[in-house]
Amino acid sequence: MNTPFTIVMIGAGRVATHLAPALSACGYRILQVYSRTLEAARTLAEKTGSQATNRLEELSPEADLYLVSVSDTALTTLLPAVTSINPQALFVHTAGSVPMSIWEGLADRYGVLYPMQTFSKEREVDFHQVSFFIEARKASDTRLLKELASTLSPKVYEATSEQRKYLHIGAVFACNFTNHMYAVCEELLGRHNLPFTAMLPLIDETARKVHELSPRLAQTGPASRQDQNILESHRQLLETEAPDLTEIYRLLSEHIQSYLPEK
Amino acid sequence: MNTPFTIVMIGAGRVATHLAPALSACGYRILQVYSRTLEAARTLAEKTGSQATNRLEELSPEADLYLVSVSDTALTTLLPAVTSINPQALFVHTAGSVPMSIWEGLADRYGVLYPMQTFSKEREVDFHQVSFFIEARKASDTRLLKELASTLSPKVYEATSEQRKYLHIGAVFACNFTNHMYAVCEELLGRHNLPFTAMLPLIDETARKVHELSPRLAQTGPASRQDQNILESHRQLLETEAPDLTEIYRLLSEHIQSYLPEK
Repeated sequence: MNTPFTIVMIGAGRVATHLAPALSACGYRILQVYSRTLEAARTLAEKTGSQATNRLEELSPEADLYLVSVSDTALTTLLPAVTSINPQALFVHTAGSVPMSIWEGLADRYGVLYPMQTFSKEREVDFHQVSFFIEARKASDTRLLKELASTLSPKVYEATSEQRKYLHIGAVFACNFTNHMYAVCEELLGRHNLPFTAMLPLIDETARKVHELSPRLAQTGPASRQDQNILESHRQLLETEAPDLTEIYRLLSEHIQSYLPEK
Repeated sequence: MNTPFTIVMIGAGRVATHLAPALSACGYRILQVYSRTLEAARTLAEKTGSQATNRLEELSPEADLYLVSVSDTALTTLLPAVTSINPQALFVHTAGSVPMSIWEGLADRYGVLYPMQTFSKEREVDFHQVSFFIEARKASDTRLLKELASTLSPKVYEATSEQRKYLHIGAVFACNFTNHMYAVCEELLGRHNLPFTAMLPLIDETARKVHELSPRLAQTGPASRQDQNILESHRQLLETEAPDLTEIYRLLSEHIQSYLPEK
């Protein structure tokens, strides 16, 4: 950045809690943290040497960038108040599922900075390991957001709002649904006195493999081998042991088969 | 091992192809490799300095251990021929889904050595990163298999045939179904000119997280937040974009919600 670049962070949830300190550590000055609850604002503001507020009318008009990282429903209601603060500033939200057009008519300079990661409050985030997807109305702001994201991570991509919808739903499959497969496994093992930790090497290798092979080519197991005996024995086992899983098992096994290369 | 320990490897498929050279590298002598197809037997036998055969009647009667790693259907038909070779030897199969009792009445000393990993021929396997599950009829053979597996990996567990059924189905969820979630993500992204590589940081973090947090606690995303707006927008998007995924999306989102901690 050529000029000192100042930020007001709107929100103190999971994404904001990780993003604001990381930006602060990269030399961006976080002027202020806003949250509906003053305590949450204060906790985060302490980490970034910022002022805390829970009143929209106290938002500082001095910042170059207003970075809004709140729940999707809160976002809609906040925008008019936030954008009225400083007509020259850049307004950016961090939501995967919200189009950039949400700012339309409210500001002149706006965009999106979507860090695609699974954030838990309990866990440190290494932003070098996070893909950022950016979009802005003006090309100069796209460059600005790219520069900002690039100080955090080498993995910065431009994506339109349309593309971001698919990134978000793709992330639901690759992260949330994947994590749920782990949860189901933990549940099945736990019922039979088997430690979930024994699964970690398999989980790790499954993730490592797709760095080198396309997931379709990396697939193994009874569905991809079309091993009807095992599929049937698993179906029977689940029917008595965990009937809530039979339909999931059947659907996923069939869908795996729909992805097999044609013979 | 106090005495020189010799092995005949029955099978030259994915598991055998990785396991036999690893055992050979650990100092076990692989006397012979059997496969239905002589070429497959020869390819593997070359890697382990062994004799190759595709004829059951040529199986060496000299080995201490007959390690059978073939498809589950081939297993049943091979056992009588294999066990008749050497009545004193130990007979072991590597299949997750086949009970130890398959050897009953055919041999005196038998067991199972199940390496729980996703094996691709294209990819080296680091056995230090593989959980082994062992079971044997006799306690002395359990010790022997534990010693053998421990030369390959620090992660060796005892598991009964009953437990192994759940390990195997758990592995289908944690590995095969997980990999399919990656495949679905790759498909969705590919249709919108987004690189699957951008997802790898998220995939890696999702796997890393469950080393520290239980998968239930690690869960994030719209289903676990019960964010009906996003769930509904994803449903609509999939209905037009990928109708084959709508039911999977719905079922998994519901099942995630059934795993949420009670409020």
